Amino acid sequence: MPENNKFLLAVDLVGTFVFALEGATVAIGVQLDFFGVMVVSFVTASGGGIIRDLLIGSVPPASIRDRRYLVTAILGGVVVFFLHQFVVQIPSLVIVVLDAAGLGLFAIAGASKALDYGIDPLMSVLMGTITGVGGGTMRDILLSRIPSILRVDIYAVAALVGAAITIFGVNRGMPRNLMMALGITVCFLLRVVSVWQQWNLPKAIS
Amino acid sequence: MPENNKFLLAVDLVGTFVFALEGATVAIGVQLDFFGVMVVSFVTASGGGIIRDLLIGSVPPASIRDRRYLVTAILGGVVVFFLHQFVVQIPSLVIVVLDAAGLGLFAIAGASKALDYGIDPLMSVLMGTITGVGGGTMRDILLSRIPSILRVDIYAVAALVGAAITIFGVNRGMPRNLMMALGITVCFLLRVVSVWQQWNLPKAIS
Amino acid sequence: MPENNKFLLAVDLVGTFVFALEGATVAIGVQLDFFGVMVVSFVTASGGGIIRDLLIGSVPPASIRDRRYLVTAILGGVVVFFLHQFVVQIPSLVIVVLDAAGLGLFAIAGASKALDYGIDPLMSVLMGTITGVGGGTMRDILLSRIPSILRVDIYAVAALVGAAITIFGVNRGMPRNLMMALGITVCFLLRVVSVWQQWNLPKAIS
Repeated sequence: MPENNKFLLAVDLVGTFVFALEGATVAIGVQLDFFGVMVVSFVTASGGGIIRDLLIGSVPPASIRDRRYLVTAILGGVVVFFLHQFVVQIPSLVIVVLDAAGLGLFAIAGASKALDYGIDPLMSVLMGTITGVGGGTMRDILLSRIPSILRVDIYAVAALVGAAITIFGVNRGMPRNLMMALGITVCFLLRVVSVWQQWNLPKAIS
Repeated sequence: MPENNKFLLAVDLVGTFVFALEGATVAIGVQLDFFGVMVVSFVTASGGGIIRDLLIGSVPPASIRDRRYLVTAILGGVVVFFLHQFVVQIPSLVIVVLDAAGLGLFAIAGASKALDYGIDPLMSVLMGTITGVGGGTMRDILLSRIPSILRVDIYAVAALVGAAITIFGVNRGMPRNLMMALGITVCFLLRVVSVWQQWNLPKAIS
Repeated sequence: MPENNKFLLAVDLVGTFVFALEGATVAIGVQLDFFGVMVVSFVTASGGGIIRDLLIGSVPPASIRDRRYLVTAILGGVVVFFLHQFVVQIPSLVIVVLDAAGLGLFAIAGASKALDYGIDPLMSVLMGTITGVGGGTMRDILLSRIPSILRVDIYAVAALVGAAITIFGVNRGMPRNLMMALGITVCFLLRVVSVWQQWNLPKAIS
């Protein structure tokens, strides 16, 4: 299905660019130098996909095999590095919306790829979630922080729900592109609404 | 040897459950939300085995290929999450004993699997040790702590000694199940006695 | 080309020993016990090569397949552990020079291996850089520090420039051993001169 692969690649590259922008912003905030900003941009953008590819046995990972991922991530990092004064003025709502879009794109594309590699449907949902949140988690580990996805917000859960919808539908024989669009939409809306409504997950009673 | 594989799977799942209980307890202690507790449960339980499988070339790793690992880890995490008030009252001796059992099971099963994949005996011992301590190390990295195995106690060393006994015996033609039982027992006893006697490894003279 | 492989192995083992010395020194500085020092020695020495091998699909990684890497790293760790009083008296210039040599050896050998595995030239340069700096980065993550390569100095950049020269030359049909020697030399000189002249990379204007 070269048609579909092309679509998946486009989705992946858009997600890569958005996540690289965010990674670079965080990296500049903690005073990294130019090279450090580029590393964090690439890790934030491609880390989740790389972990997924190692786990499902797609080696070398897409973002190592195909230089367009690196080039896209570096481009995002460079934009933020040189236009940092303007980037910090972008309203946080815009950031949340872009990030929610990137999260949905990555999670659904990741789950879909795992299924193509013969991974069990439940584990494919997990692979999608890892694709969505893995890069941000690796960035936080590099910056010696507890990954924010572990602490607060409906973030990983939005990725998980979106991926689950897609995998469930595809597994029931529904058209894949339709289920992917639906999964991305649900993930996106769930994330945006949860920020707007300040939803959080429960903690254990202690 | 499907017989032996079944035994190895059972050993692995019991170890998974025990390590998930511990991971969840630590995660709740640092105020993670429900999703974070599940992530840390799975990482603590399956992280060591996943690293081993990636390194020996068994891809997808067992705990990605087979959903029973995830389900077992989540089950352990859920038990601790909802019964946290009772779990914290469990005497620390019980925790140490269960953990020592999990460590032995994982280390010996891990070393044994590495050997089956044609890994050099010395490196198989290392793979067993990583299987035993890798999950806890990944948990500590996620929580932005220096992994406790690097600092104190006879912990990784117990895994290493148990794995070494098993690999040495199997390599000399002794029956595998016997050598596995012996390795698990030695690892378990070494760990429990070292806690009881407060044994520690030497540090460099400075 | 067994001749060249033998040369690459020798280069790798020398780099392994130098990096293990450094890893052990850092580990002792943060009061790790004997086992922790050995772990950090091996991770610092072999971590970069292991990440590269997982990413390019050379599994099991060289330092898991061949026990000489582990033995060399342990040897380096043991030397530092037992002679720590003397090691701390080594002038920092000597450390910088040895480290720069190890960096060049690893980066160029890593890039070269990636190319042999059919990795795109640009991505091979990245693989070389990861080989050079990955072990130190994993060590810093284990010790819960922000990796120093992200913050300061011409370090990763020296690895990147050296690897780029080698890959560019080999790709243009120049003799590989010559281009490797040139890449190692440039990386080494760039690193040593940058420490001497206190060069740093720019940070974003804020």
